[in-house]
Amino acid sequence: MTTSLNQKTSVLPTGGGAALLDPADAAILLLDHQSGLFQTVKDIAVSDLRRNVEMVARLATLLNIPVITTASEPSGSNGPLMPEIHELAPHAVYVPRKGEVNAWDNGDFVEQVEATGRRTLIMAGVWTSVCVMFPALDAVAAGYEVYAVVDASGDPSEMASRTSLARFVQGGVKPTSTNALLSELHRTWARPEAAELAKLYGLAAPNYAAVMESFHKAQAVARAGA
Amino acid sequence: MTTSLNQKTSVLPTGGGAALLDPADAAILLLDHQSGLFQTVKDIAVSDLRRNVEMVARLATLLNIPVITTASEPSGSNGPLMPEIHELAPHAVYVPRKGEVNAWDNGDFVEQVEATGRRTLIMAGVWTSVCVMFPALDAVAAGYEVYAVVDASGDPSEMASRTSLARFVQGGVKPTSTNALLSELHRTWARPEAAELAKLYGLAAPNYAAVMESFHKAQAVARAGA
Amino acid sequence: MTTSLNQKTSVLPTGGGAALLDPADAAILLLDHQSGLFQTVKDIAVSDLRRNVEMVARLATLLNIPVITTASEPSGSNGPLMPEIHELAPHAVYVPRKGEVNAWDNGDFVEQVEATGRRTLIMAGVWTSVCVMFPALDAVAAGYEVYAVVDASGDPSEMASRTSLARFVQGGVKPTSTNALLSELHRTWARPEAAELAKLYGLAAPNYAAVMESFHKAQAVARAGA
Amino acid sequence: MTTSLNQKTSVLPTGGGAALLDPADAAILLLDHQSGLFQTVKDIAVSDLRRNVEMVARLATLLNIPVITTASEPSGSNGPLMPEIHELAPHAVYVPRKGEVNAWDNGDFVEQVEATGRRTLIMAGVWTSVCVMFPALDAVAAGYEVYAVVDASGDPSEMASRTSLARFVQGGVKPTSTNALLSELHRTWARPEAAELAKLYGLAAPNYAAVMESFHKAQAVARAGA
Amino acid sequence: MTTSLNQKTSVLPTGGGAALLDPADAAILLLDHQSGLFQTVKDIAVSDLRRNVEMVARLATLLNIPVITTASEPSGSNGPLMPEIHELAPHAVYVPRKGEVNAWDNGDFVEQVEATGRRTLIMAGVWTSVCVMFPALDAVAAGYEVYAVVDASGDPSEMASRTSLARFVQGGVKPTSTNALLSELHRTWARPEAAELAKLYGLAAPNYAAVMESFHKAQAVARAGA
Amino acid sequence: MTTSLNQKTSVLPTGGGAALLDPADAAILLLDHQSGLFQTVKDIAVSDLRRNVEMVARLATLLNIPVITTASEPSGSNGPLMPEIHELAPHAVYVPRKGEVNAWDNGDFVEQVEATGRRTLIMAGVWTSVCVMFPALDAVAAGYEVYAVVDASGDPSEMASRTSLARFVQGGVKPTSTNALLSELHRTWARPEAAELAKLYGLAAPNYAAVMESFHKAQAVARAGA
Amino acid sequence: MTTSLNQKTSVLPTGGGAALLDPADAAILLLDHQSGLFQTVKDIAVSDLRRNVEMVARLATLLNIPVITTASEPSGSNGPLMPEIHELAPHAVYVPRKGEVNAWDNGDFVEQVEATGRRTLIMAGVWTSVCVMFPALDAVAAGYEVYAVVDASGDPSEMASRTSLARFVQGGVKPTSTNALLSELHRTWARPEAAELAKLYGLAAPNYAAVMESFHKAQAVARAGA
Amino acid sequence: MTTSLNQKTSVLPTGGGAALLDPADAAILLLDHQSGLFQTVKDIAVSDLRRNVEMVARLATLLNIPVITTASEPSGSNGPLMPEIHELAPHAVYVPRKGEVNAWDNGDFVEQVEATGRRTLIMAGVWTSVCVMFPALDAVAAGYEVYAVVDASGDPSEMASRTSLARFVQGGVKPTSTNALLSELHRTWARPEAAELAKLYGLAAPNYAAVMESFHKAQAVARAGA
Repeated sequence: MTTSLNQKTSVLPTGGGAALLDPADAAILLLDHQSGLFQTVKDIAVSDLRRNVEMVARLATLLNIPVITTASEPSGSNGPLMPEIHELAPHAVYVPRKGEVNAWDNGDFVEQVEATGRRTLIMAGVWTSVCVMFPALDAVAAGYEVYAVVDASGDPSEMASRTSLARFVQGGVKPTSTNALLSELHRTWARPEAAELAKLYGLAAPNYAAVMESFHKAQAVARAGA
Repeated sequence: MTTSLNQKTSVLPTGGGAALLDPADAAILLLDHQSGLFQTVKDIAVSDLRRNVEMVARLATLLNIPVITTASEPSGSNGPLMPEIHELAPHAVYVPRKGEVNAWDNGDFVEQVEATGRRTLIMAGVWTSVCVMFPALDAVAAGYEVYAVVDASGDPSEMASRTSLARFVQGGVKPTSTNALLSELHRTWARPEAAELAKLYGLAAPNYAAVMESFHKAQAVARAGA
Repeated sequence: MTTSLNQKTSVLPTGGGAALLDPADAAILLLDHQSGLFQTVKDIAVSDLRRNVEMVARLATLLNIPVITTASEPSGSNGPLMPEIHELAPHAVYVPRKGEVNAWDNGDFVEQVEATGRRTLIMAGVWTSVCVMFPALDAVAAGYEVYAVVDASGDPSEMASRTSLARFVQGGVKPTSTNALLSELHRTWARPEAAELAKLYGLAAPNYAAVMESFHKAQAVARAGA
Repeated sequence: MTTSLNQKTSVLPTGGGAALLDPADAAILLLDHQSGLFQTVKDIAVSDLRRNVEMVARLATLLNIPVITTASEPSGSNGPLMPEIHELAPHAVYVPRKGEVNAWDNGDFVEQVEATGRRTLIMAGVWTSVCVMFPALDAVAAGYEVYAVVDASGDPSEMASRTSLARFVQGGVKPTSTNALLSELHRTWARPEAAELAKLYGLAAPNYAAVMESFHKAQAVARAGA
Repeated sequence: MTTSLNQKTSVLPTGGGAALLDPADAAILLLDHQSGLFQTVKDIAVSDLRRNVEMVARLATLLNIPVITTASEPSGSNGPLMPEIHELAPHAVYVPRKGEVNAWDNGDFVEQVEATGRRTLIMAGVWTSVCVMFPALDAVAAGYEVYAVVDASGDPSEMASRTSLARFVQGGVKPTSTNALLSELHRTWARPEAAELAKLYGLAAPNYAAVMESFHKAQAVARAGA
Repeated sequence: MTTSLNQKTSVLPTGGGAALLDPADAAILLLDHQSGLFQTVKDIAVSDLRRNVEMVARLATLLNIPVITTASEPSGSNGPLMPEIHELAPHAVYVPRKGEVNAWDNGDFVEQVEATGRRTLIMAGVWTSVCVMFPALDAVAAGYEVYAVVDASGDPSEMASRTSLARFVQGGVKPTSTNALLSELHRTWARPEAAELAKLYGLAAPNYAAVMESFHKAQAVARAGA
Repeated sequence: MTTSLNQKTSVLPTGGGAALLDPADAAILLLDHQSGLFQTVKDIAVSDLRRNVEMVARLATLLNIPVITTASEPSGSNGPLMPEIHELAPHAVYVPRKGEVNAWDNGDFVEQVEATGRRTLIMAGVWTSVCVMFPALDAVAAGYEVYAVVDASGDPSEMASRTSLARFVQGGVKPTSTNALLSELHRTWARPEAAELAKLYGLAAPNYAAVMESFHKAQAVARAGA
Repeated sequence: MTTSLNQKTSVLPTGGGAALLDPADAAILLLDHQSGLFQTVKDIAVSDLRRNVEMVARLATLLNIPVITTASEPSGSNGPLMPEIHELAPHAVYVPRKGEVNAWDNGDFVEQVEATGRRTLIMAGVWTSVCVMFPALDAVAAGYEVYAVVDASGDPSEMASRTSLARFVQGGVKPTSTNALLSELHRTWARPEAAELAKLYGLAAPNYAAVMESFHKAQAVARAGA
């Protein structure tokens, strides 16, 4: 699988957007989204967190972006990985760990990342300040360009959350949000996946689902009355 | 349909619970959950509001409780009814209105309510302060016992929301929340629908879904290791 | 002017809505919406407060409901009345006071209220806990049915605000919000003022203005493409 | 002192304001505003709480209203009474207690209240839910009309605070705020103390002090330029 | 055990405090404080909730007040009862249920309550809106005086929490907070348990523990320097 | 039009203010302020957002600063551009896009920016994290000095909003607010547009409108009484 | 005056604290703390803002640090400077401006700053984002070390406030708070002004005043009982 | 003691984690956690602050990391050090100061830090903006790598708190949270202290304690039923 995903194809216009991430160079790392850890998250509602992660998984599948998952002691109290990820991103590769808190301390994990051939890593996980922060800092040190999706991640307090944001910036990790990630990978409506992408905006920003419902109804009424 | 739903069967113990609502006497009225109106709701996230309404619809179907829906000018900018309701509660009856803001001002609506034979009305809608408040006050005046599910409803500001709560109490309407409604209709785990009801708790309180995932995994690990 | 306004005409269906206020029996009292007092309001943004009062003034004019205004020492530091009220409700009658904090302590004010012949008083003002509360309690004692529009009013702290809400309920005053007042006076879309009323919803709930913009554009696009 | 304070003189207009408190019938009870207890207050900033109590003390002195203070174990960790009260209201009477948590359980305290001859009791204290609630409920039971000034009082959490408000209403205690108390005792600007009262509004609503500064400067500039 | 606890002895002064609860007539019901349910609580931090419940358990033991506990399906995903309760209140009686959501629907539970001979019931639990609300309403209907300790309880949202408070008041249940319960049972410092009770204030209001530390140190320094 | 706007005239004192933006070198880019997208904004009220954008449009017109607007799929569910912009800034140039999410990916747009001859770009839009962020980062990369007006923009959550702020700083974009932009372009009251500029402060900070009303009334009273 | 203030004397230990500001090199600039502007401040309560500014004024006087004040159009609607500053810091020098929004654009102001001979500038003002930001950025550009005291300043929204903080950091201005400024200038309790400085902590953190009251009472009780 | 603690032993994998702190090179400095100062903390609840500090003390003992404590005038109103620190970390060394506000201004303190031989300093204290900030900035200037644990520290306002975070980042201090510190020192579950470390997660994130209770119960039930 990773072979085909490695093929870099781009929807980007030539010349523009040099400062943005290149979807063809990106891999997504989803770290420790586990049911036990979810209970400790206090900077985002668990329903919002899971929906954001679901969006990321669907997006990765739609755009054919490699996904690597891992979990911290899933047979213990940390609990199992949320099942939606592998259901929605069947191409995702799961890497078991041997007790390491920091996924980057696990050789298999780093190896799997390297195998994608991608140099831009998009990370999300629980806790933001640990499961995302540690591999993010290590990956920056290893020369990767790293994005942390803060609302597809979770921290145990508001104070921890804003501290994570500051530490990301300080450490050269680029913080982003689920809606921005969607747009930054999406890049243009002039592509075949546009209709599928539109639906994802209703996950990244739930009011948008209602916007679309209103839009289609208004047009249907207008057409019926035409 | 309303005929069979009118059959009052009870899971309640004899003697207990006289102060609570009687599921066998209850009908659910879902009022103006429309995509355009959703954009004006500011006391609850639209994603939470819709999930709560979805829970109520599933619950009504599971427990065979009559549901009546209505919408205010759905061909205009108020937008269409959220489709989940009728999908999840196919037995729900939709009553069109003729411009009345207050559903209780519409004779067909009141007639449909009376046809259920139920005297306990559980209402939710958008806005709480209007689409729920007005028929709720009128139904109390008409001798019904009325519950307002405040978090399956929505108001355009926090200030409007707390004002609605005060006016409900002042007007003899019983305010409740989605999770309490679920429990008050549920009443006992010693019933055939218990497993189905358990899933609904994961909608009414999303952390509970993760609680169940952790529980099942912990037991599976224990059994595998036994 | 008050003579013609006294004519009670009703858009209400016969039979329904007995628990709601009767627009034909209502008068609106706008109390001490003054620029100096506005600076002390902390339970609502001044921009929201003024827009809500503007909506009430427009609504009164549209539905021909009597409006009485008054101000507390407007030549002193309390400042002048917000000019929008009399601009948008030119039929409003201004009653000067002689130093009384409580408008109901002023004989001319009470006389003007009585002259409307209306027994349902809709009050708003700054401060809620004083300029609305005092005449509201006195009017209830005098046999009027009284509504307090809490978000067309303002209090100097969140704590004062929630205390006012509790004291209104305790004292038999019905608390309401600007959006609910609009709907309770509006009552039906099947009336000649419907188009004008629709615009007022964009003031009571600003997201609704955007809802309408989207709706009209969507229909225009559909029709153009039809 | 209490003798002269017992003389009931009124600034109220005849006929108006029957629903409001009568300043000539009121006594103010300030309960346990102690430095140690202040540290536990979480529903209002201590600076705001003390300023509100200071306003009440000044107001009582200005309008010659009896004040009774008391403290709970002030030689222990609860700490001394805030000194501003007796400094600003030198006519206040301090009643020591013998260990009772509820001041109304102390015979001397009740006797002192009775000695004022006033039947309207205005109470504030720390904690609201205890030091105000207990004597307030007892005084209502004893036939007094009781007001609780919630923002000249303090509770150890927001949840305790809103619970106190609900229990006051349930128990027949009238909740009010410092600014409303000032206005309800003030009643009219046509009285000799008007200038002194004006200054108190700058304590009850600090933005008002700046309103007055701007007003006087604007007038001085206008006069200088005239 | 319940026999000796039934002995009513009082620290109350004769005459005072008739409006407050009588400790000698009170029983405490702790309902469904279970680890799985704790994860769904969103109106209070779990650490605060558990500390408040711990305080109640210690208080009951210190003042010899009967405690009855129960749990909803503790072998399932709701999880075990928090162990602190029975550790700190060894006299507490645990009543298993047979699937009933509402403890009052369980005959054994009601019987155990009746066996205490107490007519004042102090309830706390998770969820407030269900596990406290349902038996509270039923107990009021059965003629008991009922207090609900809202911050030794928990609800799945702020909106549910404020709805519960309103419904308690509407239903005749007296809402209270942990600190108020402590003080209302404590009543006087002139009793042998005073020193032990003082420590409990550090649990009900954590800043108070630091107040006492400062106090003792200040006195020690003064004495050392005397 | 762009020709005359290109003329750089300055109100700046010689020597001072080198660190601030130069109005004569600035162009304003208003990106995707569309009615459908507005519904997804959660970090600022839509009424505040629109008023801020209105202020920017008026300011640009008053100070003759070039404005370029664009919209993302305005015939689809994103909805039409808010009409106030082009009404209040009739000199604004609208650039249609061909599906690009990032305006900077559109060659016409970049060309239009270059045509202004300005090197300081002031950007605002919806979403901040996308429609502002992407062209802002690209413009910085292209050598422009870029300001992002965060409260004339909007993001779908508070978390996304603070993430955007951090990413702006990280990427060399200067974050600012509407009131600061007004002042930074205004620079001195000693200019002919002073009276017109004063009015804009009432939009950027609504309390200021009331400050001015109080001021003028106080002066009028003083002069009348002189 | 500025001559004597220019004398640099230090309480600092040799060797330590090199990273902190040097009180002997510092001047304080208080910018546009005017009554009209105060009404627009929304990121801090006006009472807190004024108390913080009062603290800074007292501190400057106590430690003999130069203070320069200025105001923006104080004869207009911006209103007069808060009088406490010059009352509490009689050595402060007021510099009138000629319409410049940015004090640094005014030559007299910059000259007065230079006259102090100090190279560390501590700034506070209203608005933070304008009256502090603009001269702060210019002073950094001119080679000064600049501190911005964010809570002795005020901005018109929370969003503007956090944007200011980000822009300060981005621009090389050091953000600080009133309590930190007090401590950074204070530096050691082993100095003659210690008792006077202690009192200022009760202004910078109002709970500390109560801490001191409890402390002194506890010691007095201990000594009395010794 | 410091000798044995100086021995650097590592659980880190070779190669990984270079960007993270090295536990073998770390010392923990706990600064001025005093009962009087605790009362002024407003950015974190005192109960949470103390529990976080307790966690740090336990962690240091478990992992044999040097701890140095100090206090500011503990015989004065600042009050005594919280006793839990030295109880739980008996190896901690206490350094008295001679009046210096900044611990780094005290030679003994700096000497004690140097004696540990560690170059990575983990600091926490009250206030964050003073007692942590000042030595943190000085330590960075002296070449140390410094971490500030923001939620084992406290500041007198939210505004001061976010200012501290910004100033830390600006000054090269790495901000972190208690849960992240635990994980960054923990690093792997494959170590003998794993069971003891697991318990500490229940302190750093109290919901996790309930997660573990549910987990163990679920397994016990499964095994009993096996």
